[in-house]
Amino acid sequence: MNAPLVLVSHALCPYVQRAAIVLAEKGLSFERRDIDLAHKPDWFLRISPLGRTPLLLVGEEAIFESTVICEYLDETTLPRLHPANALLRARNRSWMEFGSSLLQLIAAFYGAADEVALQVRAADIRTRLTKLEGALGSGPWFDGPSFSMVDAVFGPVFRYFDVFDTIGEFGFWRDLPKVAQWRRSLSARPSVRDAVHPAYGDLLRAFLASRRSALADRLVRVTSIE
Amino acid sequence: MNAPLVLVSHALCPYVQRAAIVLAEKGLSFERRDIDLAHKPDWFLRISPLGRTPLLLVGEEAIFESTVICEYLDETTLPRLHPANALLRARNRSWMEFGSSLLQLIAAFYGAADEVALQVRAADIRTRLTKLEGALGSGPWFDGPSFSMVDAVFGPVFRYFDVFDTIGEFGFWRDLPKVAQWRRSLSARPSVRDAVHPAYGDLLRAFLASRRSALADRLVRVTSIE
Repeated sequence: MNAPLVLVSHALCPYVQRAAIVLAEKGLSFERRDIDLAHKPDWFLRISPLGRTPLLLVGEEAIFESTVICEYLDETTLPRLHPANALLRARNRSWMEFGSSLLQLIAAFYGAADEVALQVRAADIRTRLTKLEGALGSGPWFDGPSFSMVDAVFGPVFRYFDVFDTIGEFGFWRDLPKVAQWRRSLSARPSVRDAVHPAYGDLLRAFLASRRSALADRLVRVTSIE
Repeated sequence: MNAPLVLVSHALCPYVQRAAIVLAEKGLSFERRDIDLAHKPDWFLRISPLGRTPLLLVGEEAIFESTVICEYLDETTLPRLHPANALLRARNRSWMEFGSSLLQLIAAFYGAADEVALQVRAADIRTRLTKLEGALGSGPWFDGPSFSMVDAVFGPVFRYFDVFDTIGEFGFWRDLPKVAQWRRSLSARPSVRDAVHPAYGDLLRAFLASRRSALADRLVRVTSIE
């Protein structure tokens, strides 16, 4: 692939991080161009039919949606992050979608209006994490010894909880040893760690605090105690 | 592929239809097993981590999420419904995601609580259809002469409007000749036509009428005039 790569990004977008992780795992150099999703620039709206990040510019061509970007990078550059066997590849892609659905639950969790809704959403997440435990093997990665596309999806998922865990105890992690080990492996992986700005944690806290939500109320209380 | 294929389905699910269309285009025989999503059977919940349709059983293995099923079928059986070129394939996958996002707007449209919300949602859909017009060529299919995976995604999208158009005039179709031609081609394609039960239109009307929504109110008025 010789065309210059530009990853159109937002500092907090978990879907952008997937693409950044895959680019890093493949040793591809690229320009990261952050935009403000609250004030989308005209050049972005012209090339992004859904107005969402990430978007990958490959020369003049714009590829949109994170899974599409990841698949494109995997089909055109080594090392392959998908299994060679079609059925195993399908299994991994299914669990990538499971990761996307967990991101939707996370958004519902941090957007919950009151404590009752917050606890319901936390229980939804807990149910999914328990299912995830059942899908994991002996690690350190989803597939075992090799880092795969599923890992690129779950690095950004677990990163949210590094902040959530400082705000309260929501019962997410009890008796999930494989998930806990996987989370640790992911947070130590350079491609995962470097997929966000160093100020990510502070930016996420500021974003969460700016919302009218039960989690924002908790965050303000925790911060004022500190 | 020698393992028996079972497509776990729901009569109205547009994502199931994608898989059914791809199976038909490839001449694969499969068993369609409909379930009631309002009362999910235990065997389904055991094998479906997200509790959603479609799910494809390939022998003992369960593949979940429609795009994953479609990609698996395309990678393992002929004729290929994706372009051979990686960048064109990425473009097509991006527009498949555009189709998924249109399905979300359609759900927001038929679920809109009042006439004001209904008109806002209709305008959202119109904006997306206008973008789609700009992506289409001379037809008859998205890619031109060959039926592709993008066509399998948009067949179920347009099918909704066969019912919506009988309920009211929402300004969806004005000055969109390429979209209109594509819609006609898709509705005449046997794989698209046969991806639902013959009673689909009646089932969709009954489903829409059962909701508390502005569209349900309109549907009741239209039906009582008839």
